[in-house]
Amino acid sequence: MAVNLARGARDFLPETMRHRRAVIATLTEVFERYGFEPLGTPAIERIETLTGKYGDEGDKLLFRILKRGKGSEVGECDMALRYDLTVPLARVLAMNPGVRTPFKRFQIAPVWRADRPQRGRFREFFQCDADIAGTTSPMADAECLAVAADGLSALGFDAFTLRLNDRRILRAMARAAGAGPDREIGVLIAIDKLDKVGREGVTEELRGVGLDEAGIGRLWSILELERGHEATLDALAPHLDDEGRQGVDSLRQVLGLALDMGVPEARIVVDPTLARGLDYYTGAVYEAGLDDLPIGSVAGGGRYDGLVGMFGKQAIPAVGVSLGLERLITVLEELGQADAGQPTADVLVTVFDEASRPSSVRAATALRAAGVRSELYLDDRKLKAQFKHAGARGYRFVAIIGPDEARDGVITLRNLADGTQHTLPAEDAAQIVLR
Amino acid sequence: MAVNLARGARDFLPETMRHRRAVIATLTEVFERYGFEPLGTPAIERIETLTGKYGDEGDKLLFRILKRGKGSEVGECDMALRYDLTVPLARVLAMNPGVRTPFKRFQIAPVWRADRPQRGRFREFFQCDADIAGTTSPMADAECLAVAADGLSALGFDAFTLRLNDRRILRAMARAAGAGPDREIGVLIAIDKLDKVGREGVTEELRGVGLDEAGIGRLWSILELERGHEATLDALAPHLDDEGRQGVDSLRQVLGLALDMGVPEARIVVDPTLARGLDYYTGAVYEAGLDDLPIGSVAGGGRYDGLVGMFGKQAIPAVGVSLGLERLITVLEELGQADAGQPTADVLVTVFDEASRPSSVRAATALRAAGVRSELYLDDRKLKAQFKHAGARGYRFVAIIGPDEARDGVITLRNLADGTQHTLPAEDAAQIVLR
Repeated sequence: MAVNLARGARDFLPETMRHRRAVIATLTEVFERYGFEPLGTPAIERIETLTGKYGDEGDKLLFRILKRGKGSEVGECDMALRYDLTVPLARVLAMNPGVRTPFKRFQIAPVWRADRPQRGRFREFFQCDADIAGTTSPMADAECLAVAADGLSALGFDAFTLRLNDRRILRAMARAAGAGPDREIGVLIAIDKLDKVGREGVTEELRGVGLDEAGIGRLWSILELERGHEATLDALAPHLDDEGRQGVDSLRQVLGLALDMGVPEARIVVDPTLARGLDYYTGAVYEAGLDDLPIGSVAGGGRYDGLVGMFGKQAIPAVGVSLGLERLITVLEELGQADAGQPTADVLVTVFDEASRPSSVRAATALRAAGVRSELYLDDRKLKAQFKHAGARGYRFVAIIGPDEARDGVITLRNLADGTQHTLPAEDAAQIVLR
Repeated sequence: MAVNLARGARDFLPETMRHRRAVIATLTEVFERYGFEPLGTPAIERIETLTGKYGDEGDKLLFRILKRGKGSEVGECDMALRYDLTVPLARVLAMNPGVRTPFKRFQIAPVWRADRPQRGRFREFFQCDADIAGTTSPMADAECLAVAADGLSALGFDAFTLRLNDRRILRAMARAAGAGPDREIGVLIAIDKLDKVGREGVTEELRGVGLDEAGIGRLWSILELERGHEATLDALAPHLDDEGRQGVDSLRQVLGLALDMGVPEARIVVDPTLARGLDYYTGAVYEAGLDDLPIGSVAGGGRYDGLVGMFGKQAIPAVGVSLGLERLITVLEELGQADAGQPTADVLVTVFDEASRPSSVRAATALRAAGVRSELYLDDRKLKAQFKHAGARGYRFVAIIGPDEARDGVITLRNLADGTQHTLPAEDAAQIVLR
């Protein structure tokens, strides 16, 4: 029988897992610093909760779960694996109308997509989201930007750029280029492809949407405004209609508040070309990339005031940010900065022979009781193999219990870094390890 | 559109989630104290990895995932959701023959079963496992018992009983009662039902398996030996054949080592009736219950030296313990001991008006920079509502920034517990919160 993982799935062996846990702990600390609270939602959702939220392509990528019992023979499904963490949040909000707002939650958890697996793209991967529901205040948008910036800094990334735009500006740009209401989204889709197909490709797309050459020219003159702060916003406004200028005013506030929140001026820029796909965004949108690494977006998000209302109850405004956990972990690993922290234990307690074994067991128990994480050597091998094990695990100390130590009720604690050793009671040894 | 969870799935709102995270952190700390390392495996596994491991009933409870593309129309499946954490561990061991042994890993993660949902039984629930692979040493079995005892103690449960038996003893008991090799498992299944169907029910089952009345009488005389330590083991041995006495000797060592490891004598007992279902166990088996609460098992496990070999490569012995995380969390909640710990933030920073808003933003940023978890009030409501919000969240402090504070670049820090307040720079306020 061939033994293997499911396609697009991964195991995380302890060393990798320790690094992942360290990254997740760092980002959790950032979220909690802002008062975001943990939310748990199930991996499995009713199919109708997920369909129609991610566009036709997204619907095709849902992993559907076969109904148990009769339906199973004909491929009937009533559940699917969650595709992201945002739609489940919207469902939670719709189901819990009494929840105290502003509701700030974070969730770091796996999602599943039936994509074709390839380098760096998996069918099961973690997302790392912080969202604020129940307020339209630009402070909430700014806080998401600040969380993204703090999260990247906390992981050691200082050279990043947050690009910022607003869906109302984008739609007004489309109108300024002559697109009717039914074509605004087509123009956005075309602009969103700029990174992939370049200026010529986008121009071709825009012709396909039905813009004339004059309109396309007007659109480029807006898209190619210099990226900056106030000056870019000032330059944008005259090209746009009322809704577009509302977007400019809102973005002005968001930008100012983000700077007040400590986002470094050099790390944030208004970019009229930023569209952020087809998603459910209604206001501000943003995306972060690393300046020195052409790996695409490492964080992104925006305001989505319409999503919760899709569940047919009251509309609840919301804004959020998602950090690209998998991509960030990969970058840290490739940069050799995957610090897995300390090994799980500090001390290996050796076992000399059958007769002294109970003494080794009691020594390990005493060390643990004193707060020292201790691995008791469980296999039946020579001391040399036990020392090798301790070295391979990166432990700092070995506690040796030979016949003499067993007789005297003490241990010989050897420091593996400098080779020094002391024979003393386990409780005293614990003090050396802990200090 | 009716909005709902999938059947048998749950959301964990922040307060519940904080408690779950606290319990998981406590158990993680216990595992790490013994040098167990974290392992991550995917939720999705190839179907053939899972089938044939859990018996026919288990196979029926697997959630199968529809294949993408063509196969989807006819209900073709090649993946399923993991059913437990043990079989995935066995797969990892089979796929990574170079892994350093003893390999000690823990995993706290959800599993999925297509059970009929009912009170306390869910289709998605967490398991919490620690396993040791690569050694047959009785120290490994004893360590699993010590981890279970320490885990329960760390959660505040002191009145528990660990019951202990060995599959070799059970099979020898069956043989002593006259069951041939093909009927040993039938006898085990009957014994396992004792809690549910009682003495009469088990006797009926044993007749069904084909034992005669003399054999059944012999079996009961063994099963009903007084539960204890050495005395029970001494009383067992004369009833058993060589394999059974091997089990007795092994259990004697495991018991002695568990006591050396600090498992309290009053908390552990040899119980000849403990069978632990139909699983893959080959040696020691154990189960813990809470003495004052008739809720069944809260931890269990045993030795399974044959499972890894089912993946067709080398056999690797293994032993493990699983703590009943969901049941333990439920008990803690019902006992009112669900300590969710501190709220996520310490301080609410209020916003007085539009003009002073930037000062509030900068105060929150300064508090966070000084290490104080601070929620900035993001909505546009009166101060009274903001104070109510801080109280509802359980924050200890409110940082008030009115026009005067904004002008002077200070904050007024009010202690919500005693009503005292001080007006001072944010950095100094942080010292008060942190001390």
